[in-house]
Parts: sequence; structure tokens; C-alpha cells
Amino acid sequence: MIKNLAKNAQNAKDASRVLATLSTEEKNEALLAIAKGIEKNKAKILSANLIDIKNAKKNNLSHALIDRLTLTPKRIKNICKSLKQLTKLPDPVGRVLSKITRPNKLRIEKVSVPIGVIGIIYESRPNVTVDAASLCLKAGNAVILRGGKESINSNITLSQIMINSLSKTKVPSDSIQMIKSTDRKIVNHLLKMDKYIDLIIPRGGKGLIQFVAKNSTIPVIKHSDGICHTYIDKDADIDIAKAVCFNAKVQRPGVCNAMETLLVHKDIAKDFLPQMIDMFRNAGVEIRGCEKTKKLVSKIKPAKTKDWSTEYLDLILSIKIVSSEEEAINHINTYGSCHSDAIITKTSSSADRFLKEIDSATVYVNSSTRFTDGGEFGLGAEIGISTGKLHARGPMGLEELTTYKYLVFGKGQVRE
Amino acid sequence: MIKNLAKNAQNAKDASRVLATLSTEEKNEALLAIAKGIEKNKAKILSANLIDIKNAKKNNLSHALIDRLTLTPKRIKNICKSLKQLTKLPDPVGRVLSKITRPNKLRIEKVSVPIGVIGIIYESRPNVTVDAASLCLKAGNAVILRGGKESINSNITLSQIMINSLSKTKVPSDSIQMIKSTDRKIVNHLLKMDKYIDLIIPRGGKGLIQFVAKNSTIPVIKHSDGICHTYIDKDADIDIAKAVCFNAKVQRPGVCNAMETLLVHKDIAKDFLPQMIDMFRNAGVEIRGCEKTKKLVSKIKPAKTKDWSTEYLDLILSIKIVSSEEEAINHINTYGSCHSDAIITKTSSSADRFLKEIDSATVYVNSSTRFTDGGEFGLGAEIGISTGKLHARGPMGLEELTTYKYLVFGKGQVRE
Repeated sequence: MIKNLAKNAQNAKDASRVLATLSTEEKNEALLAIAKGIEKNKAKILSANLIDIKNAKKNNLSHALIDRLTLTPKRIKNICKSLKQLTKLPDPVGRVLSKITRPNKLRIEKVSVPIGVIGIIYESRPNVTVDAASLCLKAGNAVILRGGKESINSNITLSQIMINSLSKTKVPSDSIQMIKSTDRKIVNHLLKMDKYIDLIIPRGGKGLIQFVAKNSTIPVIKHSDGICHTYIDKDADIDIAKAVCFNAKVQRPGVCNAMETLLVHKDIAKDFLPQMIDMFRNAGVEIRGCEKTKKLVSKIKPAKTKDWSTEYLDLILSIKIVSSEEEAINHINTYGSCHSDAIITKTSSSADRFLKEIDSATVYVNSSTRFTDGGEFGLGAEIGISTGKLHARGPMGLEELTTYKYLVFGKGQVRE
Repeated sequence: MIKNLAKNAQNAKDASRVLATLSTEEKNEALLAIAKGIEKNKAKILSANLIDIKNAKKNNLSHALIDRLTLTPKRIKNICKSLKQLTKLPDPVGRVLSKITRPNKLRIEKVSVPIGVIGIIYESRPNVTVDAASLCLKAGNAVILRGGKESINSNITLSQIMINSLSKTKVPSDSIQMIKSTDRKIVNHLLKMDKYIDLIIPRGGKGLIQFVAKNSTIPVIKHSDGICHTYIDKDADIDIAKAVCFNAKVQRPGVCNAMETLLVHKDIAKDFLPQMIDMFRNAGVEIRGCEKTKKLVSKIKPAKTKDWSTEYLDLILSIKIVSSEEEAINHINTYGSCHSDAIITKTSSSADRFLKEIDSATVYVNSSTRFTDGGEFGLGAEIGISTGKLHARGPMGLEELTTYKYLVFGKGQVRE
């Protein structure tokens, strides 16, 4: 098994060398071939997915989880639509990032190039199989996919269809590899293959991310949890505060950019919190509050220390009343996950301070954290939201799936 | 000891929060204060350095190594000169990297910000202590330094002077931390402090780099060895080839961008190699050649497989005659270290292919690999040469010591 894995990784590396030399047209043709292959094999995909759904039900997985791994004709259609849209996006490879001619006439160009081989470790959604592979391919990278065991049948079928679809294109079929074993040991071996793999992107919960960070000798860009905050400053516009907080918590609570903790300045708490909590309760949101919140509004469950660092992904919200903006900032930098945090304020100096001191990928003034998303940011597509600080931070699109190299053009220059 | 280390790392994190908010002037004042402190304490530094030199001699370290760790009044003057020059470079923090206003009027700015806390693990040169700390500081980062045991006395003295010099500036003195223990176990603990440290930069040999990559749960940008190649294409200008190869090998053989392997197309070998080898031999270069090289020129030592992946850092050169550009490219991508590689050719299609297919940080046409350097590239200063692909590749200057975040300005926007 391990020997196979090394061979697969080496094949991916070889394929990446070819991929790096292909034109935009050649890569787009491959993406269209994949879309065609998926459309043609819809029935096969749905029946593989049915096995995953049956197993999930047998194993008593939650309704939300089963929904996430379910493919429908409409969802398959959307996968194909995304593939076609991807062909319309500009090629991230070959951009001249900077250019300089030195006094000795040496001409130096910094140009974007593919990263090489990318390993993606993800959880239950089978559409990620196609999304991730196609984004990597468009950016000229080979990809090694390791999906969750819940959607293993869907993943194997989808990847086999993608690989078969490449056969009549210029993209080597080794550019897409799927790990079929669901044994976690295999991930541990994968994480040591720094000879062949250039980057690991883990997408999932804290457990997965920590396992990967601990065991990988390959650079990692983590896509971890989103413990997102909204801080209501003492002079906030209360209508804006209510609308933004409601949206950030309720519109889609199961995603990483939803609000998990609401921080409220003590001077505005009385005017704002009772109304806000009413709105939340009417929408079915469970409130867990600090001591001060409990004093202000009746029948609030107490928030424990653990709540401040919990990503509920559900209709649950922790609330804390703070004495100052500084306390809010410290709370966020201590318990947050460096994802997305917002301030609601009318004072520009408060906004400036928040923007400067909050150590997160995306910092908002007077708007909902729910906007942290490649599409909403105008990136066209995204492989996920990086919660790391190196190479890519926040929504990670096609450009972030490239690196650069320096090309130096001389006429015999030597160093003095 | 471990408890102290964690406390130090946490103090560095707290200092980094302050550093991130300082103005360019406040940071520059601190750099000038450090320069002043070093000038004032020259005698103290030299006597600490003398202890290191004595120990090195007692331990029979090589002449080259002793030279590297030796400080002289002139070298100290240069350290101070670099500090002053650093104040003249533009602040890498606060650059607006991109800007977009979305259809919903949300204004999104991508701006450069400090990374946070950077751990630098380096080997014998004590000037790195000041260079690394000052570059990190200018980019708004706190730094934790771990130098080699050979220069421990110099490093402790230099860092203590730097820390003392900060006392009357706005930069918190916890922004610079030096690990005084030379126990390797302490590095292992440092590499696990992902809660406080955002980036580890190891500068040194393969052993150090592999140790760090294996044990770090913190992102790593490696500054590893340079196994640099020059490939002489079949139609190369022989005068250019000779001048460039001589420079790449002989001008300063002990540095990472010096040539270690020369690849020569078989069609030009007879016209080029005998003269070239003569030049090298006259300069005292030991040649290790492949079978074909040995047939062409007499008295050549055989190159073993190990030679192709050895960074000599010395007047030794391995030579291989290849049958095609493809063979040269495969050799470089197999045995190289992704640092700097050059082609000498008159054919633009050969140059293009080489530039595209060589998977290295810097790829040269008709010039010496010795130019891979922050100063030569116009970066002003460099913390080293990254041989990794993520975040920073090749010469790593001030801009590469920053990351970015997204600032989003709204007026109550919510997601539909």
C-alpha cells in the first residue's frame, strides 16, 4: 500500500512537470472533458452516492451530515456548471508579478508558476472532489485527493470519471490521484512524501488540522474552523447592528463564516441586547451568555469558558458584555480562529483600531462576516478559506494555488 | 526551561501585537537605537566574540568556519551600516495590494501586515543575529533567535545589547528574544509552540532543515542548500560559457548560489570542456567527472552518484556530459535543490524550455547563478534565500516578511 502511494505520488510529480508546460486552452479542454464525462455518467455517480447515503443512515450519521454528502441530479448539474465557469476564469499561471532591469543590464522577471503537486485532505462533501481537482488543474497543479470515508464510494466514482475523461486531452491522467483506502495510517504516510508533494491543504475540523500539522513534513495551508465574532461598539447604529448580527448568525449557521460569539460594549448593552436576543430567540437561536448578559436578560444559559472557543456550526450563540474595545480585541485574539471578525461602530478611530489590531484573515466594519467567500470577494472560485497566515490567507482562489519563480535574462553577466 | 520558553514565546506574541500598530518612524528610531547601542558596546562584543573564537580553535573547527564566526571592528561597523540602510528602505507594512468595490458596495482592501512572531534558527555567523532581528522588526514582527552553539557568546551579547537599546523606544523589548541554551531539545520544544509562533525560518545545512521540517507544527520557510547547475547548450557562446562558469564556481565557492555541477551538451563538449577544465584547474578547482568527461580529458576523478546531490561549498566541481537539453533538465530537477540554475545558449526556444521546465526559485539564461541575492535583485536587504515554494521563493526581503489581511468596509450589508 505504502509502496503504491509513493509510486502514485511520483507519478503525480511527473504529471505536474507536463502540466506546468500546458497552455490555457489545453487545460480548459481538459476541464470541459471532465464536465462532459460527469454529465454522461450521472447515473453511475448517483448510484455510488446512494451506497454512501445508505451506509450513513445505517451508521446513524446526523441529518446535516447526510445532507452534505448527498448528490442529486441538480447538484451534479451545478458541479458541471462550475467546471464550465472555471474555463472562463483567467489562467493564474504566467502572470508577470514584477519586472526590473538592474544597472548591470540583467533583466529579472518574477512570474507566477504552478506549485507542483497538491495533496487535499477533506471531509464529507463529494463535490469537493471535483472542485478541488479542477481548481488545481486550472492552476497547473497535479492533485492527490483524500476524501472522508463517509463519501468514499462517490469520491472513487467521481475521480475515476475525471481520470478517464483526461485520456483524450493533453493533461496527463496521473494529474488526478485519489486515495482509495480510508485507513488513517495512509494519511500519515502521505504527509511524509515531501519529495513529491509540495503542499498539503487540510479542510476540516480541529482534530484533522492538528493531526496534519503535527505529522506533515510538507508545507500545510490549513483550512480550519471559523470562530467568528461581531463586536458592537458603544456608539453602534443599532439597526445596522441588529441586521448584521442576525444575518451573521441565522442566514446559514452551518458554515465557517457564521458568527459564533457576539461581544457587546457595556454602554450599549441595555439598548441593544434585549431586542437582539428576542430576534434570535424567535429564530430558534439558543443563547449562552456571560454573567452580565444573564443579569440583563432573563432565562439565559451560562456561557462556559469552553464556549468562547467553540465553533457551534448551529443555531447557538455565545454573548459577552465587555467594558472596552480593548477587551473585545483581546477576547477575539485569544479565543478566535483568525478567520473573520466584525465591528459595528460609527466612530472611525474605533474602526481603525479594530482593523489594525484584530489578527484575522478578514476584518469587517459594519457588515456581516458571512461575506468571507471567494465568490463574494470576486475571486471567481475558491478552494477554501485559509486560516493560516503564510502564502494564502482568507479566501484562497486560483492565484493562491500558484507560486512564482524568478527568470533572469543575461548576456554573459558575471558577479564582481 | 520549557516553561521559560513558553513564557518568552508568549511575551513575543504580546510584543508583536504592539509592533503591528507602530509607525514607520517609530520602528526606524528603534533600528537607529540598536545601531547606536552596538557602536557603543563594540569592545564588549569583540571580547565575547573572542571567547567563541578561542573555543572554536580549541575544538579544531575549520579555518572557514572560524572566519565566519569572527567579528572585527570593520564587520561591526558594517552591521551598523546595514541597520542605518534598513531605515531608508520603504516600510513593507500597510501596502494596499489590491482593492475592489463589489456590486453590493462592499469595499474590500487587501493590505500587507506583519506575520507576527518569527523564529529564526541559524548557524555560525553572529552578524545574522542583528540582521535577522532588524529585518523582522522593520517588517513589524517579533523575533525569537536561536543561533549556533559556536557563536553563542557573541549572540547573547549582541542580542542583549539590542534588547537594552529598545528600552527608550516605542518597540517593546520583548520583540527580540534570544534562546541562550544550546541544547537541541529546546529547538524541538520551540517548534511546537504554534500557539505563539507564526513562522520558523531555518537557515543551514540539510540536517537542520530536515530536523525542523520533521518536528515543526509551525509553518516553515526553509533556507536550505544550493546545489546550483550551469547547463551549456549545444550552440552556447563559448566565451560567455567560460566566463559565466568560472564566475559561478570560483568567485566565492563557499556560498549557496555558487555552481556545484556543470552539465555540458555532448555536441559542444569537445570544443568547450578541455579549455574550461584547464581554467578551473589553474584556479585550484578539483574536477569530478562522468565517464564521458573522463574520456575527453585526462586525469579526472570519477564523479559518484552522491556527487550529483552534494553541495561542496568549496573548490570542487562535478561535471556531466548529457545527450540533450531534456537530460539536463531531468538531471537538475532530480538532483538539484530548487535554488538557482542557468542555461548558456544562443537558441531562444532552448532558453524558453529551460525557464519553463526547471523547477527552481531562480532560473538564468546566459548569466552566473551567483546573482541570486536580495541585494543583486534590488530588494535592499534579505533574510536569506528560500528554497521552499510557499509564501517566499528565492531571495526573501522585507515584503516577504509580511502577510496580508482583508479589510472590508460596509454600511450594514448582509448576505442574501
